[in-house]
Amino acid sequence: MKRRQIIAAAGVGLAATALAACKQETPAAGGAERSQERFNWKMVTSWPKNFPGVGIGAERFAKLVEQMSDGRLKIKVYAAGELVPALEVFDAVSRGTAEMGHGAPYYWKGKVPAAQFFCALPFGPNAQEMNTWLHRGGGLELWEEVYRPFGVLPMACGATGVQTAGWFNKEINSVDDFKGLKMRTPGLGGEVLTKMGGTVVNMPAGEIFTALQTGVIDATEWIGPYNDLALGLHKAAKYYYTPGWQEPNVTFELDINIKAWETLPADLQAIVRAAARDVNGDMLDDYNARNMDALETLKGEGVQVRRLPDTVLARLKEVAAEVVEASAAADPVAAKVWAQQKAYLQRLYEYAEANEKDIYNIRG
Amino acid sequence: MKRRQIIAAAGVGLAATALAACKQETPAAGGAERSQERFNWKMVTSWPKNFPGVGIGAERFAKLVEQMSDGRLKIKVYAAGELVPALEVFDAVSRGTAEMGHGAPYYWKGKVPAAQFFCALPFGPNAQEMNTWLHRGGGLELWEEVYRPFGVLPMACGATGVQTAGWFNKEINSVDDFKGLKMRTPGLGGEVLTKMGGTVVNMPAGEIFTALQTGVIDATEWIGPYNDLALGLHKAAKYYYTPGWQEPNVTFELDINIKAWETLPADLQAIVRAAARDVNGDMLDDYNARNMDALETLKGEGVQVRRLPDTVLARLKEVAAEVVEASAAADPVAAKVWAQQKAYLQRLYEYAEANEKDIYNIRG
Repeated sequence: MKRRQIIAAAGVGLAATALAACKQETPAAGGAERSQERFNWKMVTSWPKNFPGVGIGAERFAKLVEQMSDGRLKIKVYAAGELVPALEVFDAVSRGTAEMGHGAPYYWKGKVPAAQFFCALPFGPNAQEMNTWLHRGGGLELWEEVYRPFGVLPMACGATGVQTAGWFNKEINSVDDFKGLKMRTPGLGGEVLTKMGGTVVNMPAGEIFTALQTGVIDATEWIGPYNDLALGLHKAAKYYYTPGWQEPNVTFELDINIKAWETLPADLQAIVRAAARDVNGDMLDDYNARNMDALETLKGEGVQVRRLPDTVLARLKEVAAEVVEASAAADPVAAKVWAQQKAYLQRLYEYAEANEKDIYNIRG
Repeated sequence: MKRRQIIAAAGVGLAATALAACKQETPAAGGAERSQERFNWKMVTSWPKNFPGVGIGAERFAKLVEQMSDGRLKIKVYAAGELVPALEVFDAVSRGTAEMGHGAPYYWKGKVPAAQFFCALPFGPNAQEMNTWLHRGGGLELWEEVYRPFGVLPMACGATGVQTAGWFNKEINSVDDFKGLKMRTPGLGGEVLTKMGGTVVNMPAGEIFTALQTGVIDATEWIGPYNDLALGLHKAAKYYYTPGWQEPNVTFELDINIKAWETLPADLQAIVRAAARDVNGDMLDDYNARNMDALETLKGEGVQVRRLPDTVLARLKEVAAEVVEASAAADPVAAKVWAQQKAYLQRLYEYAEANEKDIYNIRG
């Protein structure tokens, strides 16, 4: 093998060529041969460019993978609408338009009704409980089983932690105050509102502020202080209600096209998995810290933070339980997921009584 | 460059040699050249072989790094006592006996009094709050500053979540029941017990069971149901008390010798950081799931789980506050860390009131 032949083999394949020639003499180079393959992937997301919290977390994931792989796996991140619309991320990854996607599972509940059980449930698990179920309670295995027919491999990749009940221009003092309330609130929370006599009016993020300011809607739920402040919702609504009963946590997902995934060597697969776990924890830390900062800013600007009355929360909880059961019963796959998840979460909630919950209460 | 010459250059340096010869023709190979360096590191730990939870987590960290680096960074994990005793992990990494270590920061509080503030505080932060402070509240930067003079780089690498108050052969019905109580409980919790009139008797894990069974001690705190069941403590004590006021969480650390760290290429440094974050979240999921399972097993075996009376918890909280302040005041570095941490945690606790805490309470 002459020098000019090595040069002739220039480019990505070079090291592989050079090393393959000597492989039998250098077993250690076996891994190295493979490790020279380079991949340039696309990741479509449901987030606007530089979107606080979740959007920045998705970009951090791509950066981590590039650093860890020394540039062998480069992931170009596309904001919502750049390649596909926000809510078509799952489809794009499923059909291979992009190798990866980042979004919220319940965005595709129209296509995969079971997806929302891996994402958020009213009066449901907080981030720690969702992570425990996913990574030690059989949740991730169910999630992979549910997405496999679509050629998509899911991983948990970020969490918001506890959200807020939302921004209201009408006070909520009793269950009757939901009657006729026009509110932007998607997912199961929206179904609860409808059952409470309200009207759900959903719209993209860009339209919420004006709709609230002009009275097209009386209230809106968004995410939490960090994202809500960025959207300026405090300039369009009087009251900021807690707690976020409708979403005690939202878990975000990394979607990977399975055919593309199978072309990655084992080391790059391990890097992708670890980067997703890193971001899964880091995004929660980011939301906790920034939500705290943002709430202090909002209070400083005179925002009236109120807590929903216990009587209202009690009724919302009853209705939410009916809505979750009905939603699971409407789809056999969702029913299977919920049956397993419900049993596991009930054990986790009972365990938390004498631990996490009690610590919050004794600390005062 | 003849084939026989390539063969002559066999081994670790081979790929670098082969690629260096053609570097100018293949800029892409620049990173690849570097990525062929191989490292064999030692990681000493404070844990017995196959120790549930934290020990298994440390082994998982080493496996992740090896997978992600395609074997370029191999980490041999040593159980406590194999290379150095459990409590000498920090020293061993500091002097370079091992490149890495895994233990609990408060194990070296004799040498670094500030260390315990990165680990556990009675009536202090839970895992999520500690993670938020460390990764978004300035905690990790302080931790690095505190360890730098010892040539050690710290990273959070695992958490237990809420522990239990421990195993007792005497009922605790009032604050007076701590008078004369002989209990194995290290760290700040032990200082609280002493101030309550008890006697702290510390000993290695292997001696706890017999000491409790023979009455050498009346009580012991260990970790939580998962580890406690493995140690068989329920066979030596009547009552299992909650909540774990003395340790609402323990965060474990990865120690890295800074000189060794600086020899790693950027991609391997990124891999180590991500593996630590992965394990940091995964170990908490593991503890939550296994503690829940183990507590059900313990109850099945007739263990009497009791909650400490509110009057007792209220007094423990007062004393704990005095102990933490005194511990911080005794060392200028600890005082600096605590001043920043205390202010940040107070904001986090206030934020949790209308969020995490309220969700636990409304969920019922």
